Amino acid sequence: METRATFAVVPATRVKRQPGRASYDRLKAYAILDEALYASVGFADGDTPCVIPMAFARHGDRLVLHGATTSRLQGMLAAGRVCVSVTLLDGIVLSRSAMHHSLNYRSVVVFGRAEELTDEAEKRAALAAIVDHVLPGRSAETRPPNALELRATRVFSLPIEEASVKERSGGPLEDEADLELSYWGGVIPVALAASPPVDDAKHAPRVPPPRGALRYTRGATK
Amino acid sequence: METRATFAVVPATRVKRQPGRASYDRLKAYAILDEALYASVGFADGDTPCVIPMAFARHGDRLVLHGATTSRLQGMLAAGRVCVSVTLLDGIVLSRSAMHHSLNYRSVVVFGRAEELTDEAEKRAALAAIVDHVLPGRSAETRPPNALELRATRVFSLPIEEASVKERSGGPLEDEADLELSYWGGVIPVALAASPPVDDAKHAPRVPPPRGALRYTRGATK
Repeated sequence: METRATFAVVPATRVKRQPGRASYDRLKAYAILDEALYASVGFADGDTPCVIPMAFARHGDRLVLHGATTSRLQGMLAAGRVCVSVTLLDGIVLSRSAMHHSLNYRSVVVFGRAEELTDEAEKRAALAAIVDHVLPGRSAETRPPNALELRATRVFSLPIEEASVKERSGGPLEDEADLELSYWGGVIPVALAASPPVDDAKHAPRVPPPRGALRYTRGATK
Repeated sequence: METRATFAVVPATRVKRQPGRASYDRLKAYAILDEALYASVGFADGDTPCVIPMAFARHGDRLVLHGATTSRLQGMLAAGRVCVSVTLLDGIVLSRSAMHHSLNYRSVVVFGRAEELTDEAEKRAALAAIVDHVLPGRSAETRPPNALELRATRVFSLPIEEASVKERSGGPLEDEADLELSYWGGVIPVALAASPPVDDAKHAPRVPPPRGALRYTRGATK
């Protein structure tokens, strides 16, 4: 299938509220997915929706997820449509009025059916992507999964096709009349920040932390 | 209804995977809910699960959510069971083996049926809680909702009863044999960090930023 630069808009992904904040740009979605450390994955368990934070990775034009074979979650991943939601917080927007308070954020939502990967090479590549997602290159600097671990792990892959981006940036929107009021308006920027790496206290490591852990950042622009 | 210090365990909230990481302690759940800036709210839209990031607040023993009356989301909030999922990231766990890589986190999931608030005083109190959730005391330092804004906004309230906490902390779990390997093991701590507040660039504020915005932190212990 051809990879399109823009996602086709389907009923599940059409952003109706504040469509000016929506985008269907694939590269924009990929940048957000690559920066996020975890995804909130939603399943419908009968009439009960269920949302679980999960490690994940973008692997080319697909999302990959994994879990223990014994997990109820993995059964639900296999069973029906899923929704993978990722959000990055950029700021707290304080307005002169209560109702114009807001958050600055970048978010992606991906819908679809997850396909289980059963081929060993495909499973290994997806699991390496999940490790490299938290620290690029890390999968080459750790013991790879052994046969037992591979058997105990189910891996799922979801095409990034039914997807949309929604984001807000900038200062508060204000009603004209509110500008007379003596309340502050502006943004408190927020971002995920890393501290220096901490050695395993139980078993002192034999080597120093990897370079990428020393000044750890997420996102291409930071 | 009596407020219990521990949530009753029901099928939706029973943590089966790694039950040692689970808790049903109300105060622990409240601390996590109060620290999180947004929630990932899940609905079942027919057979399609849908997960949306939303502002929220804990208002006593309930969660409150709001949105425009015209929003499709609000219709789904009113229609059936919802799942509110909140996650705080505390660290990236690097292990000597790929499969023991992990994330340190604190998360809460709340299931239930949301009830729409229609009483004006109740709506006002819930909306004030949502503003105060991002900055304590802020609802008293901003113009309150007017009649038009109140009419255009639906507010929902969800009891915090079907709820569970799941968290991971500490260093990597390692297989004994892997400790011989020359790979680093430990944690990169991460946390949401705020920068100094930025004045509204479009309309210069007439007053300085509120005190709580100057050294903005989340969570009681920080």
